[in-house]
Amino acid sequence: MIIQLQTNVSSTEKGVIVDKIKSIGYKTNEVVTQHGAYLVGIGKKEFDIRELGQLKGIADIHRVSDDYKLVSRKWKVGRTAIDLGDGVVIGDGNVSIMAGPCSIENEKQVELTIDHLVKNGVRIMRGGVFKPRSSPYAFRGLGIDGLKMWYAQAKAAGIKIITEVMQVSQIAEMHDYVDVFQVGARNTQNFNLLDELGKVDKAVMIKRGISGTIEELLYSAEYVFAAGNEKLILCERGIRTYEKASRNTLDINAIPILKEKTHLPVVADPSHGIGIRDFVEPVALAAVMAGADGIIYETHQKPEEAASDGQQTLDFLESKALIEKMNKTSQLLKTF
Amino acid sequence: MIIQLQTNVSSTEKGVIVDKIKSIGYKTNEVVTQHGAYLVGIGKKEFDIRELGQLKGIADIHRVSDDYKLVSRKWKVGRTAIDLGDGVVIGDGNVSIMAGPCSIENEKQVELTIDHLVKNGVRIMRGGVFKPRSSPYAFRGLGIDGLKMWYAQAKAAGIKIITEVMQVSQIAEMHDYVDVFQVGARNTQNFNLLDELGKVDKAVMIKRGISGTIEELLYSAEYVFAAGNEKLILCERGIRTYEKASRNTLDINAIPILKEKTHLPVVADPSHGIGIRDFVEPVALAAVMAGADGIIYETHQKPEEAASDGQQTLDFLESKALIEKMNKTSQLLKTF
Amino acid sequence: MIIQLQTNVSSTEKGVIVDKIKSIGYKTNEVVTQHGAYLVGIGKKEFDIRELGQLKGIADIHRVSDDYKLVSRKWKVGRTAIDLGDGVVIGDGNVSIMAGPCSIENEKQVELTIDHLVKNGVRIMRGGVFKPRSSPYAFRGLGIDGLKMWYAQAKAAGIKIITEVMQVSQIAEMHDYVDVFQVGARNTQNFNLLDELGKVDKAVMIKRGISGTIEELLYSAEYVFAAGNEKLILCERGIRTYEKASRNTLDINAIPILKEKTHLPVVADPSHGIGIRDFVEPVALAAVMAGADGIIYETHQKPEEAASDGQQTLDFLESKALIEKMNKTSQLLKTF
Amino acid sequence: MIIQLQTNVSSTEKGVIVDKIKSIGYKTNEVVTQHGAYLVGIGKKEFDIRELGQLKGIADIHRVSDDYKLVSRKWKVGRTAIDLGDGVVIGDGNVSIMAGPCSIENEKQVELTIDHLVKNGVRIMRGGVFKPRSSPYAFRGLGIDGLKMWYAQAKAAGIKIITEVMQVSQIAEMHDYVDVFQVGARNTQNFNLLDELGKVDKAVMIKRGISGTIEELLYSAEYVFAAGNEKLILCERGIRTYEKASRNTLDINAIPILKEKTHLPVVADPSHGIGIRDFVEPVALAAVMAGADGIIYETHQKPEEAASDGQQTLDFLESKALIEKMNKTSQLLKTF
Repeated sequence: MIIQLQTNVSSTEKGVIVDKIKSIGYKTNEVVTQHGAYLVGIGKKEFDIRELGQLKGIADIHRVSDDYKLVSRKWKVGRTAIDLGDGVVIGDGNVSIMAGPCSIENEKQVELTIDHLVKNGVRIMRGGVFKPRSSPYAFRGLGIDGLKMWYAQAKAAGIKIITEVMQVSQIAEMHDYVDVFQVGARNTQNFNLLDELGKVDKAVMIKRGISGTIEELLYSAEYVFAAGNEKLILCERGIRTYEKASRNTLDINAIPILKEKTHLPVVADPSHGIGIRDFVEPVALAAVMAGADGIIYETHQKPEEAASDGQQTLDFLESKALIEKMNKTSQLLKTF
Repeated sequence: MIIQLQTNVSSTEKGVIVDKIKSIGYKTNEVVTQHGAYLVGIGKKEFDIRELGQLKGIADIHRVSDDYKLVSRKWKVGRTAIDLGDGVVIGDGNVSIMAGPCSIENEKQVELTIDHLVKNGVRIMRGGVFKPRSSPYAFRGLGIDGLKMWYAQAKAAGIKIITEVMQVSQIAEMHDYVDVFQVGARNTQNFNLLDELGKVDKAVMIKRGISGTIEELLYSAEYVFAAGNEKLILCERGIRTYEKASRNTLDINAIPILKEKTHLPVVADPSHGIGIRDFVEPVALAAVMAGADGIIYETHQKPEEAASDGQQTLDFLESKALIEKMNKTSQLLKTF
Repeated sequence: MIIQLQTNVSSTEKGVIVDKIKSIGYKTNEVVTQHGAYLVGIGKKEFDIRELGQLKGIADIHRVSDDYKLVSRKWKVGRTAIDLGDGVVIGDGNVSIMAGPCSIENEKQVELTIDHLVKNGVRIMRGGVFKPRSSPYAFRGLGIDGLKMWYAQAKAAGIKIITEVMQVSQIAEMHDYVDVFQVGARNTQNFNLLDELGKVDKAVMIKRGISGTIEELLYSAEYVFAAGNEKLILCERGIRTYEKASRNTLDINAIPILKEKTHLPVVADPSHGIGIRDFVEPVALAAVMAGADGIIYETHQKPEEAASDGQQTLDFLESKALIEKMNKTSQLLKTF
Repeated sequence: MIIQLQTNVSSTEKGVIVDKIKSIGYKTNEVVTQHGAYLVGIGKKEFDIRELGQLKGIADIHRVSDDYKLVSRKWKVGRTAIDLGDGVVIGDGNVSIMAGPCSIENEKQVELTIDHLVKNGVRIMRGGVFKPRSSPYAFRGLGIDGLKMWYAQAKAAGIKIITEVMQVSQIAEMHDYVDVFQVGARNTQNFNLLDELGKVDKAVMIKRGISGTIEELLYSAEYVFAAGNEKLILCERGIRTYEKASRNTLDINAIPILKEKTHLPVVADPSHGIGIRDFVEPVALAAVMAGADGIIYETHQKPEEAASDGQQTLDFLESKALIEKMNKTSQLLKTF
């Protein structure tokens, strides 16, 4: 059960509501986000909703049978759009394109990439400065200084930044230089990180776990929302299967299923989803056609020389072609 | 190595070629299909291709590094189209639509379905008369009599039939009433069945195994081709993963990967690929966008009353809408 | 519901029972095996079991809530032992050892293997004469002549034969030379093959599918039993997962789970289960300790020169050591 | 390449060695742990090992072809034992038993559990005070106060504590009350956590990821070792597969494979590995027989009333029986 509170609810009124919910046999969680205040009631007992409905301070009451509540479409049927400012919105019915290198490498690379994005009407740049790597001996990214360098250029060009945060202690130092915090596939169930990201007023994109279920992804989003941040985006990036012909298996089914289950925007990552440069385009277009609200992919001025993930990275010519095709596909889909 | 023989090659000439190949240290398999005669050489030794090239009776020689040979695009770069007659072709650049019920149930159902297909310009009807079922106590289909009843109506309406063959002994009895033999996901590696289907001059569509690899699917096609039948179609129908929110996980990656590796047409089955009626449409459209040559899906006049698979079956209204959208999507893709 | 019929039940009595079951709203399947006659009732309706219990010709009535019936332990709590004759029994509380090469290659190999088995007290020899191979160009086995040659030697030495049957047409020709028909992992859901194996009075060992569920394996056994053959053995041989360090992932959990769900004996195949010679021993011992009724593994006089599967095949010294350890492990387990 | 340095190596000598390694074209990582000092050289170039061998300050040089180095058995063939003090050692050839509840609940529960362990000769108690939970609304454990309460009792009884640490900030507060830090399956690739655990002188047990590979587990251990802590234990706890009859699929193969690849002790967790109380025993015994150095499992005075994981938790009677059987199994294995 989700109780939306009125914006001007008093503490006394809230106390009465909480007591009433507890008397029914429900546990309550109080959630205050950028956009509203909620009481989430957890319990199974049947009760007469009118007992609550007449209390002061309540804007609306929703029964939600799913075990995740705030991210469920059972209470919020309309779709949530995430506004990053300066006219950049994810989930407004258009396909949001996020492109850039796997790793931020140097100033020149950032300059060339931003130039490519601006010319092609892309408003969000992806890139890694803290890189999760299986081996402790691999390149782990430029770190916070790289982020500041990148931010300076991006800000000047009107480009928004999405980049991965790996641990709680990075949130504060990254905060002012990031538009969207990305939670990587190895951290989807890093619950402390999710809790902390619930306390900042920045958008958060959560990638599905390496072999995470759709339900687990929704629960992870629920963590962030319940901790106070409802600017959330979900990302399908391929799951681990037995098939060795591709790096991961992009779960195209997850796109319509997620859009049925949650009001949050759903993005697809074809670069990691298939892991093979030549096939990023058809998979990206398929994801748009399946209803994805955005596509995040890797591009680099010289993929052969990229510091990481070159084998799945488009050059700018390929990127340009893909952008045009995604836009046309999105246009067609709108007519359906 | 694949050696294409001239159509008028004499036995003596062929003997000379075979001896030469063996002398190099290769095993040879002689393959004669509807469309040509080939010698497939299996071996790893290096040799001077000119030694062979000068022999009489040879039309062309191709080195093929893949372990599957005849189905590889390494020797046949162009795409193979499968002509079912009466202007029905799979793999000609358009999206071939195959629709119909999971199980053939009765005359009335067939009549209604054919009427729906004809009105919407669909030329191929799917349906099961021999049904593989996990439980021995479940409905196993109408059998050969059902097929004959179905064929009579389909023939009259200019509709082609695709239906599953489960065992060697059914091939002969089904032969005259079938346009495409379908090999189901539980029989993808039923090698005796594949061998026998190599001996008939009917198209064969092979579904990927329940958890089969892309490579295994190509090997299974190689079985049929090597036994003499090159009228082959491959079908991605979803693989088994840990995800429980969908029946199977349609491997969208498999479509561009297969089209890179083989010259054969590639069809997708969104009904089994996701297993949920409401989401068949977005997955079907995604598969078209990923480059599928055809889509096979389940439709029924009253899905709620279908003898099997009702939960993933479209009604005729949904089917009609899907057909229109697939055609528009295919048109857009052609402009790319 | 399973109704065990009395051995002397008359046709009239049986007719009365069937009518009664149908009147309750159940479908009935009549099953006659080597050991008994049963009516399997399929339905969900509640009814008073005394209505049936008073009819003539009934030996016993069991409610079975599982969807598979005859193989369930819900009606037959004791364990089934499969008697191969000459004192060779599978499922009698000892660990039954089945060893031999992947492929039968020649007379000398058979002679050496039988000699090794006899010296070490092993009574069942495994080996393939019809080999399922992914590629049509690979060695497919010696065929029926190889089987006859093998049988002659095995018979003389008091050794029983287990070997794979790949298709219906092979059953008759193999019948007299086989003690246990093996259904391979690619044929676990070849329902026609299962149906036909239900009609012969020979033991059948069914391997779990490449990525088959435990439930599917039980259903496949139900097919054979329902068709008239209850001499059944199940085999866990590893499932396909994403892990690449081993050929398959032997599902050790499946052993106690199967033994809880079914009264049939359960065998493990560590050779295919891990696929690496050096680790066959620990996995075999683990399977014995988990409660397996038998172990089937590959051994060859010179694994390096074996026609197939050499990388997972023990030499005779390793095999001898394993046999001793399995016997000691089995002895310890009996004391628990 | 791993260069073990002499304990009395001077900074100048070390500088000379590092320069030499770099001149060959290798990157170097300096690692100082509780037990030694190492230079890990990362590179592929061939060189004459004698160039290095003659330098002062080097104790030994090992070529290690694996991509993980310090945890590899390629340089340390003998097995590493982890000494927890007071005669409690993991990896000394005996099977180390770690038992206790899923969650620490209250003082009485801790008292009863410790009493059970002491009576049965078990020296290590497991239990969770920080619980990773999919849902933000589920019980997350007693936290640091619960740990202190537990520690007071355990210390008095001579029992060692293993418990999960979820994030970097918990390490310091937990440090004095923990004998083994456990890294859970959702944190196997939380690289920041691993880095920080490399800086403390406490044993660390790393669980394999939810669907982690064996190789990834070794890399995660390499992180901790490379950061300075070589008191490491690995734990196989079951992987996620498509099989629904068990909670996870315990990968029995992983035990001998890990013991071949690494010198670190390997523990198995049958409680999570199968997730069904009745089958914990056979799976535990199988793991011992496969060569596990230890078994960690869940036990509770009243599993039906446990705060979490009751369905896979043994009562004390079952636990006692299991301990005796594991000890006997371990004794038998030593005679092999």
